[in-house]
Amino acid sequence: MKRTSFARWPCSIARTVDLVGDWWTPLVLREAFYGVTRFEDWQRNLGLGRNVLAERLKRLVAEDMLARHRYQEHPERHEYHLTEKGRDFFPVLMAMLSWGDRWLDGGRGAPVALRHLPCGHLTRPEVVCGHCRQPLTREEVQGELGPGFPPKLRTLPLVEKRFARKGERVSS
Amino acid sequence: MKRTSFARWPCSIARTVDLVGDWWTPLVLREAFYGVTRFEDWQRNLGLGRNVLAERLKRLVAEDMLARHRYQEHPERHEYHLTEKGRDFFPVLMAMLSWGDRWLDGGRGAPVALRHLPCGHLTRPEVVCGHCRQPLTREEVQGELGPGFPPKLRTLPLVEKRFARKGERVSS
Repeated sequence: MKRTSFARWPCSIARTVDLVGDWWTPLVLREAFYGVTRFEDWQRNLGLGRNVLAERLKRLVAEDMLARHRYQEHPERHEYHLTEKGRDFFPVLMAMLSWGDRWLDGGRGAPVALRHLPCGHLTRPEVVCGHCRQPLTREEVQGELGPGFPPKLRTLPLVEKRFARKGERVSS
Repeated sequence: MKRTSFARWPCSIARTVDLVGDWWTPLVLREAFYGVTRFEDWQRNLGLGRNVLAERLKRLVAEDMLARHRYQEHPERHEYHLTEKGRDFFPVLMAMLSWGDRWLDGGRGAPVALRHLPCGHLTRPEVVCGHCRQPLTREEVQGELGPGFPPKLRTLPLVEKRFARKGERVSS
């Protein structure tokens, strides 16, 4: 069954989900952040099928989140390393982990604690405004049409209702 | 085909993926954050099949991310509202959006800009250490066994190799 593609929706959540929102891909990335680079290690650590893993790695390489390097010629063997795009996904996993630690710990506390080496403390990741550094809550964030929103969709009733239209461009 | 369940893995990323890591669920939540509460609105806005939507809403209610309320008796109709657990997922979507804005915008800029109302600026969400408020990078975060890690798994070679074992408890 062909799934719906969200890759071209005018929403960065949908586009991200399209890329990494199957069950295995975020965990394949988690392993990469733990330092895994080889097929056999992913396969053993996650216990997923080889065909599923091969397909996920291929997708992550095609999307430039992992880069494939040959490390042995006879027989030919490859390693997979995170690219800048892949490394930049780390905060997304940290946000997921923080939520899971709070809500899915079964009352036993976090399975894995995170030490933030520069400050030395065990940390809980927080998602904040890049400008004022305060936590982002639903009530205090308002979506506006950005420069990448398709012109032909801007006049749809749902879109007009949903977004304020200030015509400003995103600045970080 | 029954998928692998990650719900009991000792990893909050895996548990979160198990709950919301299919293609539609994060978008069902996105709509809830935009204020959608009714089946017909989700169905129209996302264009997904009714059976798929019904199954996702049922899961989110069972997991206490959405609460179901009857708003009409004849015929019986229900609304779905975010619970505290559901509202707390907002930062995860913000982290996904921020990554997608950076890497999946096709060079056209963010489709949707976010205004942070308290500071008034267009914002880019960042994931920071809850203690020192500095951005979290892979190189500066170290995983340690937490209180919720199953005792019987602590001596596995992979686990011993992967985690420092300080025996400290997580504090936020």
